[in-house]
Amino acid sequence: MYNQELVKEHERVDDLQINNLKLIQDPKGFCFGVDAVLLANFLEIKRKSRIVDFGTGTGIVPILIAGKSTADEIYGFEIQEDVAEMASRSVKYNELEDRVTILNEDLKNACKVLEPNSVDVVTMNPPYMPNHKGIVNPNDKKAISRHEIMCNLEDIISVSAKLLKQYGHFYMIHRPQRLADILCLCREYRLEPKKIQFIHPNAGKKPNLMLIKCIKFAKPELKIMDPLYVYGEDGSYTEELRAIYNNETIETT
Amino acid sequence: MYNQELVKEHERVDDLQINNLKLIQDPKGFCFGVDAVLLANFLEIKRKSRIVDFGTGTGIVPILIAGKSTADEIYGFEIQEDVAEMASRSVKYNELEDRVTILNEDLKNACKVLEPNSVDVVTMNPPYMPNHKGIVNPNDKKAISRHEIMCNLEDIISVSAKLLKQYGHFYMIHRPQRLADILCLCREYRLEPKKIQFIHPNAGKKPNLMLIKCIKFAKPELKIMDPLYVYGEDGSYTEELRAIYNNETIETT
Repeated sequence: MYNQELVKEHERVDDLQINNLKLIQDPKGFCFGVDAVLLANFLEIKRKSRIVDFGTGTGIVPILIAGKSTADEIYGFEIQEDVAEMASRSVKYNELEDRVTILNEDLKNACKVLEPNSVDVVTMNPPYMPNHKGIVNPNDKKAISRHEIMCNLEDIISVSAKLLKQYGHFYMIHRPQRLADILCLCREYRLEPKKIQFIHPNAGKKPNLMLIKCIKFAKPELKIMDPLYVYGEDGSYTEELRAIYNNETIETT
Repeated sequence: MYNQELVKEHERVDDLQINNLKLIQDPKGFCFGVDAVLLANFLEIKRKSRIVDFGTGTGIVPILIAGKSTADEIYGFEIQEDVAEMASRSVKYNELEDRVTILNEDLKNACKVLEPNSVDVVTMNPPYMPNHKGIVNPNDKKAISRHEIMCNLEDIISVSAKLLKQYGHFYMIHRPQRLADILCLCREYRLEPKKIQFIHPNAGKKPNLMLIKCIKFAKPELKIMDPLYVYGEDGSYTEELRAIYNNETIETT
């Protein structure tokens, strides 16, 4: 392992099963889940796209995008310094430094780092939980990944709307409980909701995740996709989910 | 049939399979569908509720509510005079005149007929199609039931918000394509979306209908329910749907 020096003692390296991509993770920190994989798979990316991933964490989404497309200008914003540093090492580990840049920046400052109206795709796998003061420890890395401590939905949506080009795409995965919040905020900032896919643990059960695609300045025309089921009747992953974990390209022409 | 004189020659009488309720329909007009039955089943109605159904058509929803609850003040608004007259005859046919009143009124005038902030439940099975001028004949009864000719979503939601008491319930069945429009308008008029159920023709297929419950002035907390499938794998109605068509009470305590 020629780049083993990039990995610290308490960290581990996971194989993403896609184009031999690897990811450095801290088992004591917030590790990537199926959400990031589902989000990356949901994207429609054109050649030569400029892409921004907010709250990138381990760098999982930018690295998956790099593996699944030819996009050569991918930025991952991560506010936590040590997490951003670890994500940068994952980028090096995969020799993706010329395509993926991890920025240790507050996403609220994104328009100071990147030009407004210049981005083709913004993605976000945000903290799912609203910030209930007093319940969470604001210094806790897992809490920052799970709770709206450092940013809330309106921060994410408003800055995404500024960064995106006309007809640029905004993608998000979130909990269905936030459906009304997300749709109303996106509309307020002229990111028109175009596509929603609900993800259900099983057929017959309510969804516990949803994928949303919005297009800046688009006309209203929302499509609800066929649902995605994670587990089949026998308790194993469905074929659809296994296909997502396989090496499928996400690029469109 | 002691009340056969209530039925005109070109009309037919359908058995609603609930408490021996019957419905007069004009086979050449817009006949009720599964939507109305699903909407009536989705309602949670407390004793002694004051209920308004907008765009009542044949009167199916008020008559089903009367059959499934003890509500004794149910109003159905219908703008088309002959349709309202037929619905009134269905009310008489079922001897529900003391509980159900059909009003031949534009729903936009509802606050002139009923006191604002006085209604417990508003229901609506609205026209699903936006009004594309020139495509539809505005004198066509079926077109008025299907297209937003006489009222649009904002008319319905704004007048419902005025009529309802604090914490009164607003229920609607609509197409999933209108999800963003409905959630954003409801929120704008302080009818907070609380519950959504998507209705799919089959498991694995995208939904083609959805049921929405909002509560006036409630706090945001949206629940997506387990999905409802209309047909099972063998092509016949699912057990759930058959249960809805059976005589189940919808009253809560």
